[in-house]
Amino acid sequence: MERCKCGRRAVFFRRYEGTYLCDRHFTYSIEKKVKRNIRVNRLIRSGDRIGIAVSGGKDSMSLLHIMNEILGPRRDIDFLAITIDEGIRPYREKGIRYAKEYCKKLGIEHHIYSFKDIFGKSLDEKMKEFENPESGLSCTLCGVGRRYILNKVARELGLNKLCLGHNLDDEAQAIIMNYIRGDLFRASRMGPKPVVYDKKFVGRIKPMRIIPEEEIKLYATLKGIKFQEKNCPYKSGIRLEVREFLNKLEENHPGIKFIILETFDRLLPYIRQCVKNHQEKVTYCKFCGEPSSKDVCKTCVLWRE
Amino acid sequence: MERCKCGRRAVFFRRYEGTYLCDRHFTYSIEKKVKRNIRVNRLIRSGDRIGIAVSGGKDSMSLLHIMNEILGPRRDIDFLAITIDEGIRPYREKGIRYAKEYCKKLGIEHHIYSFKDIFGKSLDEKMKEFENPESGLSCTLCGVGRRYILNKVARELGLNKLCLGHNLDDEAQAIIMNYIRGDLFRASRMGPKPVVYDKKFVGRIKPMRIIPEEEIKLYATLKGIKFQEKNCPYKSGIRLEVREFLNKLEENHPGIKFIILETFDRLLPYIRQCVKNHQEKVTYCKFCGEPSSKDVCKTCVLWRE
Repeated sequence: MERCKCGRRAVFFRRYEGTYLCDRHFTYSIEKKVKRNIRVNRLIRSGDRIGIAVSGGKDSMSLLHIMNEILGPRRDIDFLAITIDEGIRPYREKGIRYAKEYCKKLGIEHHIYSFKDIFGKSLDEKMKEFENPESGLSCTLCGVGRRYILNKVARELGLNKLCLGHNLDDEAQAIIMNYIRGDLFRASRMGPKPVVYDKKFVGRIKPMRIIPEEEIKLYATLKGIKFQEKNCPYKSGIRLEVREFLNKLEENHPGIKFIILETFDRLLPYIRQCVKNHQEKVTYCKFCGEPSSKDVCKTCVLWRE
Repeated sequence: MERCKCGRRAVFFRRYEGTYLCDRHFTYSIEKKVKRNIRVNRLIRSGDRIGIAVSGGKDSMSLLHIMNEILGPRRDIDFLAITIDEGIRPYREKGIRYAKEYCKKLGIEHHIYSFKDIFGKSLDEKMKEFENPESGLSCTLCGVGRRYILNKVARELGLNKLCLGHNLDDEAQAIIMNYIRGDLFRASRMGPKPVVYDKKFVGRIKPMRIIPEEEIKLYATLKGIKFQEKNCPYKSGIRLEVREFLNKLEENHPGIKFIILETFDRLLPYIRQCVKNHQEKVTYCKFCGEPSSKDVCKTCVLWRE
């Protein structure tokens, strides 16, 4: 039996560090890494009003837990939780229940918004409109709509930051996806620090972007946090292929997801310069007034008639 | 039966263009694309003395054929062929025989250099020194040694350009590999145009970097060019994983390898700026005097005691 440095039974072997960790040292190390990320990149400042996006999955539920520990004691910072109900039955309902229950338990203000209320139809209803939807369409519709609502309601709630549960795997996947699709504009919006490129845009912070997915899952489990364990039934598209590739790669070359993130962060100022020189500018959608890179924003194209 | 626009039987369906091509229109289109690349990126200039690197595989043999067509009639440009014998038996010997025969047939001056003569041992002999070589070591040893010799002998032969047979797949793989390994320095040396970053370095041109591997193979076959069809017995390492990933991706998203290349070319000036700012400079190896990014070049580290 492998043991932690403290002598207790190890529950995890962190390959890229070569260390065995017991449950306590494991969860402690996750919290330490998240706190360090927040400190180094100055993700939080006095006076912040932060909205934590909670879907009910392992990432956002762990985020809620950790951020509550960090922000709970601070009187100079306000925070609340936001859940978007895309209308994916029965998958999302279970997640929402977990989110609701945990917010109640922790005493965190919780707001829920639905696609149905805002766009007039749920994702399930929307998807029924397509006979042979191309792979990934559901994820595009879902992501575009969700980001739209999150940004809009965050502004309306007077928040200055959105806190998202993206993990290292999500980030590495997005980096490679943007690269192979040639989407430098979207790449330029990523990065370790919140970017507010427009007054109508609420900056996003991702405190867990340096934590691998499997470690967040273990963290939630060890902390006894309930979360929606199933995968979204619509999961599809190029991200799945990239995900599989990166997981295989990580198996043979431990730490490679970190390297991808670090390389990206190093290149980011130059990617931004490149995008700036090719002048893709932010404007406002002529229908809904939200920030957009085109005359009509993607939400209006996809979700409104 | 599918037909070419000319009415002849199609031998190839180019998915990313949606066109069926007969043998004649296919080979013509390859030559046209290569010529266009040479013209647009000004790969060739009057007065050039060009060394074509020929291993005997499909890429370099097709390159030799096409470059002979283009350069043969020009009195203002000299060119010859160079083959490196790494000492991989019996694999490389067959390739060298094909290269020799084809150079003789076309009347092209041909120089052959071996690892054995220059480093004192062949790759086969070198690899026997390792009991459990890590995956990819053979490719590192081979690539480092080959590039070293090519650059050195090109200079000694009074050449100002090295012409390489890299295809689109090679380039897309290298782009992704450099990215996931965080090797921006090496990335900064790639690109559509020859970069001469030091007087001791002979610029490299890659006229076929916009042609997919499978099309070059078909080109060689349709032209009746003999080539070494086997894969190198040492083939291993991360490149294989990247290759497989990109091939799967291309199947589901035709044209994605092009997009990777285009995105890279668009980013390249900014990557170069990034590398410049982090001041990785060219110096000369203190043992052999060849250009290097470190005090001692990789060839001396790997190949000399």
